[in-house]
Amino acid sequence: MGAQTQRSASSVLSTPSDREVHIERVFDAPCELVWRAFTEPDLIVQWWGRGNRLVIERLDVERGGHWRFVEHASDGRHGFEGRYREVTPPERLVSTFEWDGMPGYVVVNTTTFDDLGDGRTRVTTTSLFHTIEERDGMLSSGMQEGLDQSYAALDQLLAKLG
Amino acid sequence: MGAQTQRSASSVLSTPSDREVHIERVFDAPCELVWRAFTEPDLIVQWWGRGNRLVIERLDVERGGHWRFVEHASDGRHGFEGRYREVTPPERLVSTFEWDGMPGYVVVNTTTFDDLGDGRTRVTTTSLFHTIEERDGMLSSGMQEGLDQSYAALDQLLAKLG
Repeated sequence: MGAQTQRSASSVLSTPSDREVHIERVFDAPCELVWRAFTEPDLIVQWWGRGNRLVIERLDVERGGHWRFVEHASDGRHGFEGRYREVTPPERLVSTFEWDGMPGYVVVNTTTFDDLGDGRTRVTTTSLFHTIEERDGMLSSGMQEGLDQSYAALDQLLAKLG
Repeated sequence: MGAQTQRSASSVLSTPSDREVHIERVFDAPCELVWRAFTEPDLIVQWWGRGNRLVIERLDVERGGHWRFVEHASDGRHGFEGRYREVTPPERLVSTFEWDGMPGYVVVNTTTFDDLGDGRTRVTTTSLFHTIEERDGMLSSGMQEGLDQSYAALDQLLAKLG
């Protein structure tokens, strides 16, 4: 049980090309619920900020819609924003992502939600960067650690909702 | 004189890599004036829309600032937007660009303004795309023709201001 939980709770990172990062993570919740946690503001605020207060300034989950979140962390406010390229519930979200600290450096995130047939869902995100340097900068910034913190909070939210 | 004018008024396009488009154009105006035409809303509306009415919904010409223009053309409204990555007057502007028709497909435009020392200015824009397909799609969309129309209007504006 301990090992099983450990496996479910770990994200697996790979680099399929020199401008991409690919991350997989399995959640113990059905696909529709995981989709809601990624797209409904009342749910997003409970996990995305990793315990920090998150203010959703904008969230239009539709093709062409914008999103903007501000995380209130101990070291200050961090703004993130982007725009939806594709929204196909409950299977696939494609959106852009940029951090206020590096404005104009835009990542394209393609996230798929796979129903594993046993009540679990695999979430896979492939991030495409404009340059190798931007990709490597993101990798060395603690991207996976931050994501794992968010996903641990999402585990708790999904357990509560389930 | 005719040939000279012709040369000044033509943009030169090249593709330095498979995800880039490079366009050069010389204007008969000093660098500071050309810079103003690219960054001041009262001037931008007089050339960017190629004769169509242009509404500037947002324009913060500073690092991290956003811009959003809506062109009112005969076939409808076309929104364009992005964010400034770098603003170094009167030499260099780096900003993102996307068209509402393909939301989330983001181009990075690096524009430099070179004083040619004879009252003319060379404007060079290098556009970086996330994929070859996006670059080729932009090339086949009539990108250069549209830009040449805008730049012809800019010629007229600069002559009037000069």
